[in-house]
Amino acid sequence: MKTRAAVALEAGKPLEIMEVNLEGPKAGEVMVEIKATGICHTDEFTRSGDDPEGLFPSILGHEGAGVVVEVGEGVTSVKPGDHVIPLYTPECRQCASCLSGKTNLCTAIRGTQGKGLMPDGTTRFSMSDGTPIYHYMGCSTFSNYTVLPEIAVAKVREDAPFDKICYIGCGVTTGIGAVINTAKVEIGAKAVVFGLGGIGLNVIQGLRLAGADMIIGVDLNDDKKEMAERFGMTHFINPKNSENVVQDIVEMTKTPFDQIGGADYSFDATGNVKVMRQALECTHRGWGQSVIIGVAPAGAEISTRPFQLVTGRVWKGTAFGGARGRTDVPKIVDWYMDGKIEIDPMITHTLSLDEINKGWDLMHSGESIRSVVLY
Amino acid sequence: MKTRAAVALEAGKPLEIMEVNLEGPKAGEVMVEIKATGICHTDEFTRSGDDPEGLFPSILGHEGAGVVVEVGEGVTSVKPGDHVIPLYTPECRQCASCLSGKTNLCTAIRGTQGKGLMPDGTTRFSMSDGTPIYHYMGCSTFSNYTVLPEIAVAKVREDAPFDKICYIGCGVTTGIGAVINTAKVEIGAKAVVFGLGGIGLNVIQGLRLAGADMIIGVDLNDDKKEMAERFGMTHFINPKNSENVVQDIVEMTKTPFDQIGGADYSFDATGNVKVMRQALECTHRGWGQSVIIGVAPAGAEISTRPFQLVTGRVWKGTAFGGARGRTDVPKIVDWYMDGKIEIDPMITHTLSLDEINKGWDLMHSGESIRSVVLY
Ligand SMILES: NC(=O)c1ccc[n+]([C@@H]2O[C@H](COP(=O)([O-])OP(=O)(O)OC[C@H]3O[C@@H](n4cnc5c(N)ncnc54)[C@H](O)[C@@H]3O)[C@@H](O)[C@H]2O)c1
Ligand SMILES: NC(=O)c1ccc[n+]([C@@H]2O[C@H](COP(=O)([O-])OP(=O)(O)OC[C@H]3O[C@@H](n4cnc5c(N)ncnc54)[C@H](O)[C@@H]3O)[C@@H](O)[C@H]2O)c1
Ligand SMILES: [Zn+2]
Ligand SMILES: [Zn+2]
Ligand SMILES: [Zn+2]
Ligand SMILES: [Zn+2]
Repeated sequence: MKTRAAVALEAGKPLEIMEVNLEGPKAGEVMVEIKATGICHTDEFTRSGDDPEGLFPSILGHEGAGVVVEVGEGVTSVKPGDHVIPLYTPECRQCASCLSGKTNLCTAIRGTQGKGLMPDGTTRFSMSDGTPIYHYMGCSTFSNYTVLPEIAVAKVREDAPFDKICYIGCGVTTGIGAVINTAKVEIGAKAVVFGLGGIGLNVIQGLRLAGADMIIGVDLNDDKKEMAERFGMTHFINPKNSENVVQDIVEMTKTPFDQIGGADYSFDATGNVKVMRQALECTHRGWGQSVIIGVAPAGAEISTRPFQLVTGRVWKGTAFGGARGRTDVPKIVDWYMDGKIEIDPMITHTLSLDEINKGWDLMHSGESIRSVVLY
Repeated sequence: MKTRAAVALEAGKPLEIMEVNLEGPKAGEVMVEIKATGICHTDEFTRSGDDPEGLFPSILGHEGAGVVVEVGEGVTSVKPGDHVIPLYTPECRQCASCLSGKTNLCTAIRGTQGKGLMPDGTTRFSMSDGTPIYHYMGCSTFSNYTVLPEIAVAKVREDAPFDKICYIGCGVTTGIGAVINTAKVEIGAKAVVFGLGGIGLNVIQGLRLAGADMIIGVDLNDDKKEMAERFGMTHFINPKNSENVVQDIVEMTKTPFDQIGGADYSFDATGNVKVMRQALECTHRGWGQSVIIGVAPAGAEISTRPFQLVTGRVWKGTAFGGARGRTDVPKIVDWYMDGKIEIDPMITHTLSLDEINKGWDLMHSGESIRSVVLY
């Protein structure tokens, strides 16, 4: 069949909207009609050419929601008509990683996914001249129709709006999951979030959900303050107005009883390795935990004095918020539908597929939290 | 009173054995007759002048065992005649850190201890001309008699031999505690220990105690292999015979089912920041934990790509093995007396106080695991 898609033909170029060929699902695969897709930093990382592992031509997009239209041989967990969210982190429930119970990083199809291929080593997309088009993060939600492995779709309730829950396919789950799965923040904790973009806001609402007492947000842009407060931020620091952000946080978190100070938990949602270091060092001696969410430029390294760890701080990271996609994503959709978490105010812009390249500008200007493309 | 002690008069000089003045215990303090003391790398770090925070003149030593001879006003938890192990990490059970239940790093007397003083801001030791001599790590076990805060002594059983259990005051507890308190290693785990000195051997016996399946030791010195095997090491790597230690460990830990590979836990017991990085990077994607025990040279920094953490590895450290001294040290003495852990083969040399400076040579040559001074 044919489908409309935004194709990344070359690194650094705008996406091109065109008709492409899409083969039907093979065994263990499903075809999904994407109804809405968010535009994430990771897409831009690849589109721009900054991602040294980027493949072209490819169809980007990994934050979608849609409806199953056809299933391949042997598919049992979803059927045509089911509403689903594509998963760039699949959940096979059978590999050593899934069965460890210690990680969400399923490795069943890691090799082919990283090469832009379906598990059988081929692509379903091709140009009108037959040139194969690579898949992206196993999802390629910048195509109206796409094919995914069965283990890479989460079945969700049918009354949930596609244009909002698509964001659960990446940003929402990453931010909230970092708090509840990776850091396992407890009621009464003091936490710091560096970077108040889409990810940081979701960390903040995760912290509110977890019952944190103090939610300190740090951003270079004062305009981020208002929205962050709306999601639960209790204190704001702009590093431009601070001589030493780490010291400020240590002071703010002191109590008459605890004169050591430091955050119980911190999160980097900037992708800046210097900020990652601050995030670690502002946590409490003895038990502070810092979680890296941001994706750093290729080759960038984090560093600190080992004494920071020897005196009890813990440095961690999170991918897709530690969420097991098929198990946890449907729950997060429920939380949204039940009003436990909010998404609507974060979807600041909606675009048509033809307008998709506007999304990059909105992202860079800091104007959008999330732009969503509606098919 | 007067007591014999080995005094560090100046950075980089041998200790001088002399009679010094010792005041009796003030309120909340106890006087202990030290019967035996180990000689640890941390003492040498300070003696040699490498420790930028080293104070002189001081009486070093922090790994002792002895008998309470006098208690100051208000002391209730020990009495003269009690056998005790001095604690450089005290346990007040009342400060924010102790009460957090999340750390062993009691902060009750941190300020004064770091300055070489008793909690009231003065020293009990002085030279014959009255010059104050600094305490060291709150212990100063290189003196036959010493004064310590009550919260810095662990009361232990009286049938345990001083010349062995003194080692529980630092090395044994640090190594075993890193496994059971900090990493919380579970039965069947695969672990790697970098550095097979005194600390590394205790990590190894901690891993054996915890039921680890695979205990890989890494050391530049082949002579360390035999003793490490005696304590439970199952595999040995000498980096001199390896092109890539990290890759070797990944390969060794693969199974037919788990083709990702990597250690579940790793420990640095070298103090080398490059090794600390290897220790992190050889752990398993998704859940590997690496614990820094080694103390790095002043100013040295650890680094890695944040991707290592984003893909699920955790970087931690440990001080005194995460042990709460007054609570856990007596248990470790019991384990020794019950034969659950071994200490005797690690005490390779015993010296008189007069011979204490030989300890540094034995340490540097790699000849000793632990030298113990008997009073
Ligand atoms: N680990 C994962 O699974 C995962 C998933 C999605 C996104 N991410 C990453 O999360 C990061 C954040 O994504 P986002 O969509 O929120 O980005 P964003 O650009 O919307 O937000 C980043 C925010 O950080 C602020 N900032 C930049 N430099 C700063 C500094 N030095 N100090 C303080 N604040 C600073 C910016 O002003 C901005 O508000 C990105 O690196 C993205 O790639 C990670
Ligand atoms: N965190 C704590 O609470 C604590 C407590 C006590 C000691 N320590 C530290 O632990 C470390 C180890 O102490 P120790 O007494 O066992 O020292 P040690 O010198 O007896 O042992 C170190 C071992 O590491 C090996 N080694 C050195 N460089 C290596 C490399 N590049 N690769 C592999 N092996 C290498 C040496 O051959 C030696 O066998 C020291 O840094 C010490 O200061 C920490
Ligand atoms: Zn994303
Ligand atoms: Zn799996
Ligand atoms: Zn020591
Ligand atoms: Zn305390």
